[in-house]
Parts: sequence; C-alpha cells; structure tokens
Amino acid sequence: MSPPPYELYYWPSIQGRGEFVRLALEEAGAPYVDVARRPGGMKAMMEKMRGDARTPPVFAPPFLKHGDLVIAQTANILAYLAPRLKLVPRDDASRARALELQLTIADLVAEAHDAHHPIGVDLYYEDQRPAAKKRAAGFIASRIPKFLGYFESRLAHSGDYLLGAKLSYADLSVFQVVCGLSYAFPNGMAREAKRIPRLVALRDRVAERPRIAAYLASKRRIPFNEDGIFRHYPELDAKKPRRSRD
Amino acid sequence: MSPPPYELYYWPSIQGRGEFVRLALEEAGAPYVDVARRPGGMKAMMEKMRGDARTPPVFAPPFLKHGDLVIAQTANILAYLAPRLKLVPRDDASRARALELQLTIADLVAEAHDAHHPIGVDLYYEDQRPAAKKRAAGFIASRIPKFLGYFESRLAHSGDYLLGAKLSYADLSVFQVVCGLSYAFPNGMAREAKRIPRLVALRDRVAERPRIAAYLASKRRIPFNEDGIFRHYPELDAKKPRRSRD
Repeated sequence: MSPPPYELYYWPSIQGRGEFVRLALEEAGAPYVDVARRPGGMKAMMEKMRGDARTPPVFAPPFLKHGDLVIAQTANILAYLAPRLKLVPRDDASRARALELQLTIADLVAEAHDAHHPIGVDLYYEDQRPAAKKRAAGFIASRIPKFLGYFESRLAHSGDYLLGAKLSYADLSVFQVVCGLSYAFPNGMAREAKRIPRLVALRDRVAERPRIAAYLASKRRIPFNEDGIFRHYPELDAKKPRRSRD
Repeated sequence: MSPPPYELYYWPSIQGRGEFVRLALEEAGAPYVDVARRPGGMKAMMEKMRGDARTPPVFAPPFLKHGDLVIAQTANILAYLAPRLKLVPRDDASRARALELQLTIADLVAEAHDAHHPIGVDLYYEDQRPAAKKRAAGFIASRIPKFLGYFESRLAHSGDYLLGAKLSYADLSVFQVVCGLSYAFPNGMAREAKRIPRLVALRDRVAERPRIAAYLASKRRIPFNEDGIFRHYPELDAKKPRRSRD
C-alpha cells in the first residue's frame, strides 16, 4: 500500500486553523495523516518547521507536505488542495472567487482570535481581560454582523453554495466559522442567526453531508476548547436575550 | 486604443493594502487605472462594491476588475495577477510558495494595523491609546523580529529573492512592509535592521529597479500618512537608541 499522499501538520489538541484543512480532506475522502496527533508527531512537526537544505523553514502551522512540497498558510493550503480534491472548479475565475471568500473568512477568524487576545498573542487571556471585553463587545455588535451579513449577501447572489450550485472549500470553511462563533458567543449568535437564514441553511447542509457528518461524529473531530481560536468565555459574550412573551 | 485591462479600486488617499497591487502593476509596466483616484472615482468604487445581477458584492477594497471578473482580497488579487504579469513562475509549487509568503506578509500587515487599533477598527486611535501602547510595545519587541527574522531565514535559503534568483510579487510586498514599518517605527526598525541584512539588501534591490524607482519618484506613489496602515505615532515607537561611543 502506498503512503497517504497528504501530510497535515498542526497542533494536535485544537481545531484552530488546521480544522479548515481537515474539513476539506475529510469531505473529499482524501487519504491523509494528521502528523502531530501520532506518537512522536509533535517532534516531527517541530523538526519539519525548521526546514532543511531542500525545504525552507515554516512560519507557523498549519502546513501541508505533498511529495517534496511543504507549504503553509491555511488559505494557501486550501487553494493548492482544492483543485486536486475537486473542491473548486478548475477555471481561474472560480478559483479566485473561492480564495477571495477564504481570505475573508481568514480575516474573520483573526478577529475572532483577537477578541480574546487584543493586546498580544504572547500574553495570557487573563492579563488582557479588560481590553478583551471591549474588543469582544465591538466584535459581536458590529464585526460579526458585517462579515456574516456579507456571506449572506453572497449566498443571495450565488444560490445554495457560495460559488453556486456546487459545494466548494469556501462552504466548508464558512460552516466551520459559523460553528466556532456559535460555540464562542452563543448569546450573540442566537441574535445574529435570525439575520442570516441562508448561512444557517448552508451550515446545516454541510453538516448533513455524509462524510462531514461521519467526521463530526468521530474522534478525529477535536471538541472546541479554550486553547483554540473560538473560545467560550461567558464574560465576553453578549447578554442572554430576554424571552419575548408572544 | 483599447482601455487598460486592469482596474484597481482602492481608497485614493492612502497606500494601504492597495499599494501591494500598485507595486505589482507598476513593476510589470502593466496598463491599469487606479479608479478611485480619478474624478468621480469614489462614487464608481462605492457602486461597484454593492455588486449587481452578474457580479457579487465586495467586502472591502482593494478589488480588481479584469474583464467581467471582479475580485477582492490583496493576496488573491496578486495570486491572480502574478502569472499574467510574469511576477511568479507558472508551476504550482512556485505559486504556492509565493502565496504562502504573501499571506505571511498579510498577517504582519494586519498586526501592524492593530498596533494602533487594538480594540476596534470602528474606534478612533485616540480612544484606544493606552491599549495601543501595550500592543505596539509587544509588536516591536517580539512580533516584528519574529516575522522579519522569518523572511530573513527564507532569503538565507533562497538567495537574492524570496523564490530564488528571480523577483516575484512577494519581494515587492516585503519591500513595502519593510518601508512601512520603517516609517511607522523608525527607532524600533533602526535596531531591527542590524539583524536582517539580507532583507535590507532586498529592499534596496527592489527600490533600484527602474520601474519601481520611477514609480516611487512619481505622484502616483502616495506618501505614507496617519490614515493608512503604517502610522507614525512617536509614542508607539521604541525609544531612540543611545549612540554607542565606539
């Protein structure tokens, strides 16, 4: 048997940015190794990051090894994988539209991270809590609606999926972001959900795909937790909406 | 005469993220229109952003119109343009390496922005100055060295340019970032420059390219200012290094 062609390198205990790559590989049914989750895998990842005579060093996980090629940056990995996994049409225009969406998702992911780390990634959350409260409030009040409203408007334009009638990797990524934001900010997202019916329907449509459903139910799906990007700190969420009487 | 094939849409008074696209178009000598800098251009940009029956809405400038295709996200625009402008080799591996570098530059650019806007893009700098001081201190002390040290190590691996012997769009972008950081944090960068000789040499090599030199000397190059991404707020910079006696 030949070894799996794709090696994913990412932190073994969080979904994080690696999850966008995992979802694409899982949806495609592609054979892959999640290297750092194997025994000795963290050591292998750290070595690989330093690079060697043939391969340049890597700035940060996630990164992908495919044959001799080692590449990092989530959106870049997806742009490289997607034509090979049939998760994007092959024409330049479709690929540019998918990458545009993925990079807008990446911006939203970075802001979701900074909601709990506004002052510095090198500091603990506990040391930047007052700033985090302010940043998270603005994130929930204006940034989440702006980003998700944008994806909603793209769906109004495109149809069932972000590029049209067929699923692309951007749909898997938007699914992941909606799940992550709902985990981190359940109150804020309960309010927001009413404004994004198409996006909610897309999330459900992705969750029901046989391979994604099997993946989500498996041990390969790491639960959300407070070491990842989407963290549930109740003090950063919106207040619980009052129940209306009618 | 046929109209220029490329239309760039970006804020007319700042370098910002649009500058990475401008540099690529200028280096290639490609005919383009910087739409929003023309009379009535801002109105045209705002209309185009809303989209229409054929074209989806745009999240944010910069965006590029090429024929019927309208695409946003700086790195995506560059990945699309580069093979057309001969600013990247055509093979998949080189294109993935260039995009990886560009996206790492984009992460650095986002952090440079957040150094003066750690709490929220919707707030004035003046309303988040204490948080900005903390974030900028960490940015200068650990993030700039981490990012620039990484690009330095890539150059140690690749040679004169980031992909090897030939210039790519990633080199133009790293030039822009080094210029921007030097404008924003002259003291911090004076210290840093000693640790990144290859990167400093690359910056000079790019600045001397005939089309880039002509562009930088022209009115098309908007000066850095405090509305852009790289802002010079002296209170956010490192202290002036003491002159050593020897």
